[in-house]
Amino acid sequence: MSTHVYNRIALIGLGLIASSMAHAIRRGNLAQEITGYARSEATRETARQISLCDRVCDTAADAVKGADLVVLCVPVGAMGPVMEEIAPVLQPGATVSDVGSVKRHVIEAVQPHIPEGVHFVPAHPLAGTEHSGPEAGFAELYDNRWCLLVPVEGSDPDAVDRLRRLWEGMGANVDEMDADHHDLVLAVTSHAPHLIAYTMVGVADDLRRVTDSEVIKYSAAGFRDFTRIAASDPTMWRDVFLTNKDATLEILGRFTEELFALQRAIRTGDGDHLFDYFTRTRAIRRGIIEAGQDTAAPDFGRGGKP
Amino acid sequence: MSTHVYNRIALIGLGLIASSMAHAIRRGNLAQEITGYARSEATRETARQISLCDRVCDTAADAVKGADLVVLCVPVGAMGPVMEEIAPVLQPGATVSDVGSVKRHVIEAVQPHIPEGVHFVPAHPLAGTEHSGPEAGFAELYDNRWCLLVPVEGSDPDAVDRLRRLWEGMGANVDEMDADHHDLVLAVTSHAPHLIAYTMVGVADDLRRVTDSEVIKYSAAGFRDFTRIAASDPTMWRDVFLTNKDATLEILGRFTEELFALQRAIRTGDGDHLFDYFTRTRAIRRGIIEAGQDTAAPDFGRGGKP
Repeated sequence: MSTHVYNRIALIGLGLIASSMAHAIRRGNLAQEITGYARSEATRETARQISLCDRVCDTAADAVKGADLVVLCVPVGAMGPVMEEIAPVLQPGATVSDVGSVKRHVIEAVQPHIPEGVHFVPAHPLAGTEHSGPEAGFAELYDNRWCLLVPVEGSDPDAVDRLRRLWEGMGANVDEMDADHHDLVLAVTSHAPHLIAYTMVGVADDLRRVTDSEVIKYSAAGFRDFTRIAASDPTMWRDVFLTNKDATLEILGRFTEELFALQRAIRTGDGDHLFDYFTRTRAIRRGIIEAGQDTAAPDFGRGGKP
Repeated sequence: MSTHVYNRIALIGLGLIASSMAHAIRRGNLAQEITGYARSEATRETARQISLCDRVCDTAADAVKGADLVVLCVPVGAMGPVMEEIAPVLQPGATVSDVGSVKRHVIEAVQPHIPEGVHFVPAHPLAGTEHSGPEAGFAELYDNRWCLLVPVEGSDPDAVDRLRRLWEGMGANVDEMDADHHDLVLAVTSHAPHLIAYTMVGVADDLRRVTDSEVIKYSAAGFRDFTRIAASDPTMWRDVFLTNKDATLEILGRFTEELFALQRAIRTGDGDHLFDYFTRTRAIRRGIIEAGQDTAAPDFGRGGKP
């Protein structure tokens, strides 16, 4: 029985997110054909060797021809130019979507190039690992994770609904959100934490009296989790911070304010302030476990694929 | 065949660390008898119900009588008073050790109470989870993790060597380090990262325009790892920050300096600065994986016990 949601899906960019989509689409039999394109010849060659798509094309235009869904899976800063390139060959009635971590900027960069008769439905799957490239993907990445759809003004409800069915078919839970709220929520839950982790790992590396090898040898819980976050793709994250500037800077401002208050509590020996703060944050963790977004099992970064 | 390193080991405090020691000691048949004591009657009762030790005693003095190893597994701030209480009943030739995350303060609090003829060998196993209490322990917690021994001036080499064999028997790798260097290394790899994680989780909770339930629902990689760290035992961490004040504040000072530089790069749109920084931190992660302190497998906090 066919469960196809689309006839042909074109994945533009073949990194972790796109390659996981390819595996998940096949697992769910959600499309008849998957085409792919990556800017780098080496990436295209790898994708061909592992048979990631049915066809890996040498141009983005070739990949999108005849596709009823095109998903832009390139860094946020590259979305606009790629869209401009493929616009002339898009099939009428096709849907263009993306997987960018920032939505307001992507909408502003992509929407002006969307041809009449083509639907644009921005999306953002909240899933990832610190690994990159076409070989990093796996079919389970989106299972029980959220995918946020961010319809723009005038998005066709049927096109939105069809994209929702694709993401649900790939295992995700789907919600809708407007672009500005999305960017603020993500600044809190993802963008600011990533910058903070990058910073702490950089500080450790700078410290002269503690060697890198000591930091590495003795990095137990705490720092080790930070290094995992801070190992994420540099290009992707550079673009995220540059394009979600206002929300990220707002959250970082609140963060440093709060951090200064805790530093002062340490300096003045105010144990009650510290204890109360740490007790409150513990409750938030329990909420996440109850919401099913993580497990209570001890982990230490040693777990394998779920 | 007996592999006993000690005849009777007394665990004072029965939280995650002590209960994992009990399981690991039994797994390795490293002692003939394990006694235990916890201040809270409820904790003692739980420990008895799960047969954590051979005997759970109602006073610390009863637990340490006749023990040739006593391990203080209480929060750092409680080490001194507990040591004072048990000093009169310690067996001559016995070794006292601890598992505190801070070493200079513990040495200053404990050593004055060590009787003549009793050895004091401070230690710190670099392992843990965000869970607490006697039921949180498991035998594998120390496998392939580091335990740092921090001998004090005049520590008996045989007593140090014997404690080393115990920790190796529990699966740990053992290194020696002096107290001040230990406290600086841990400030970088553990204490500052924990305070930062606590701070970020608190900021998210404070934000009015993003609800707690949104933060919880949409907390993908990044924030979710922070919440795990920020769920650690509040009493333990309060004591860590109050007793490793100088090193923690020094690292936090460098951290905020570095964070301000990255915030400025975001504000001014300096993508090269961000890209270079993120590329450098990625290399540190690779070092940790090569050092065997973590695996490269994708994780997302969904893994179970190793």
